[in-house]
Amino acid sequence: MTKNKPTLLDIRHAHQLIRPYIHHTPVFSSQQINEQAGCEVLFKCENLQKVGAFKARGGINATLSLDHGALKRGVATHSSGNHAQAVALAAQIAGVPAYIVMPENATRVKVEAVKGYGAEVIYCDATLAARESTLEEVIARTRATLIHPYDDNAIITGQATAALEVLEGLEVQPDYILTPVGGGGLLSGTALLAHYLAPSVKVMGCEPEGADDAYRSFRKGEWQPQTNPQTIADGLRTSLGKKPFAIIKEHVSDILCCNDEEIIVAMKLVWERMKLVIEPSAAVPLAALLKHRDVFAGKRVVIIISGGNVDLGNLPF
Amino acid sequence: MTKNKPTLLDIRHAHQLIRPYIHHTPVFSSQQINEQAGCEVLFKCENLQKVGAFKARGGINATLSLDHGALKRGVATHSSGNHAQAVALAAQIAGVPAYIVMPENATRVKVEAVKGYGAEVIYCDATLAARESTLEEVIARTRATLIHPYDDNAIITGQATAALEVLEGLEVQPDYILTPVGGGGLLSGTALLAHYLAPSVKVMGCEPEGADDAYRSFRKGEWQPQTNPQTIADGLRTSLGKKPFAIIKEHVSDILCCNDEEIIVAMKLVWERMKLVIEPSAAVPLAALLKHRDVFAGKRVVIIISGGNVDLGNLPF
Repeated sequence: MTKNKPTLLDIRHAHQLIRPYIHHTPVFSSQQINEQAGCEVLFKCENLQKVGAFKARGGINATLSLDHGALKRGVATHSSGNHAQAVALAAQIAGVPAYIVMPENATRVKVEAVKGYGAEVIYCDATLAARESTLEEVIARTRATLIHPYDDNAIITGQATAALEVLEGLEVQPDYILTPVGGGGLLSGTALLAHYLAPSVKVMGCEPEGADDAYRSFRKGEWQPQTNPQTIADGLRTSLGKKPFAIIKEHVSDILCCNDEEIIVAMKLVWERMKLVIEPSAAVPLAALLKHRDVFAGKRVVIIISGGNVDLGNLPF
Repeated sequence: MTKNKPTLLDIRHAHQLIRPYIHHTPVFSSQQINEQAGCEVLFKCENLQKVGAFKARGGINATLSLDHGALKRGVATHSSGNHAQAVALAAQIAGVPAYIVMPENATRVKVEAVKGYGAEVIYCDATLAARESTLEEVIARTRATLIHPYDDNAIITGQATAALEVLEGLEVQPDYILTPVGGGGLLSGTALLAHYLAPSVKVMGCEPEGADDAYRSFRKGEWQPQTNPQTIADGLRTSLGKKPFAIIKEHVSDILCCNDEEIIVAMKLVWERMKLVIEPSAAVPLAALLKHRDVFAGKRVVIIISGGNVDLGNLPF
């Protein structure tokens, strides 16, 4: 995995490697949502994945891909979200230590979940600088390997396996695949897989207007940072990674934006009509589709539902 | 369907009849819930069924089983819940009119859903007497056929198809199947099907303490009415039907109760861990299982998740 860009074989190998530990998540659809959208929408339900998000795929692949010596020393990351749980689960599977740096203000449920997988949680101030410096200290002390949430080929390769399952499972290929884009691991992996396996399928990223660095970077053709993100889609506030961006620039056909109000409407629609708990970030592609429905009229669209980890005590509706 | 008790052939015929119009719903499990329960729990997800509840099975079967003349005149029922949507959908499938008597205080979402299937909604006062007299008037006027929500062999037969899918889909048979019990259509159908297909499987009903008429009837061996039910499980406030009770007396091995607090805990557990939206009534079997976990220790238990229609603006957590 020292090459510039993961290959189809890398993605297939990743799938073989992680398969015993992940769910082959179902693809669901809703007639009522199809009618409202004016197209056929197929939802790949990664909210039903282990740890409640696609992040399990990349986290497990990156961890189990380490060489024996590195693996034994364990893995480390900083995250207040789904990646933290993914790395904790991956370490539990491998039987090695996990060191997770989490901000003091992380929700109790998320901290408990990480601890539930046997990981050691190290608290720090809720700033990116504190998270990074604390993680550096932890790595210096433990010699654990950093598992980056997205700027890592093994992560991108792991996330690509969701689309692999979709495209191999469908008898008729879709016209589009939509994913949310935050750090870019899922979007870049999906775009790469479609490029290899079904090049006629257009892959698009979907992003909240209040954290639109991928949109701006894509338009400008040059990486743009995310400063001061403002969106309910907490999983997408992060800056786009450089490695994912290189792939996105080449293989993604467009990036669509939508606002928080539209995200909440789409989220509620999935809860009500499909009886699925999805997190705000996971509702972004449906929100973008409903906003730009002229683009998709009469087409067959796969949406990767990225996750379902929400605080039930703090819902936006 | 004039016989006393539906046969296995009746259930198989019902499945053939309704199959093109319903979802073959998935069976999911959660390692975390298994650990918490101390047994293996398999959830048959009828919240992902058409209309968001198992009621689609019975409603479609009862409607499509009518003879041509009766079918043409349409179907009628009174319901503020899932049965209303089931009958409305069934009539839409058959291309015949549906007349649904609903109390004035029925939630807007439910009324809209019924109207969305093209049914005519007739409002009445929110008392059982008003519902029944209004329904009588509607039937006298339209000559539509009453589709009773549970006290009807075609309904019982339709509801039995959920367990048919489970038992035919599992390689290893479960030790127990748990369902909620309100009117008794689902519980009696499930018990009958297990009796025919896998007599070693014990079928149990689960009921809220605040609406425990099935529990009292079962204990006493004589039908007892439900007066003044007090429970969050709105689908289970109804009185047990006489036809279901005859089957339940013979083929159900026990009825377990739990309180509303336990129901809310179980409901939240499924939302958080399984990312599934389930209604309070659907959480009753898991609540009962967790309360009586000694009974199920180390066993394999199927729970039929009855539905997922909740008011997202009025959640108990």
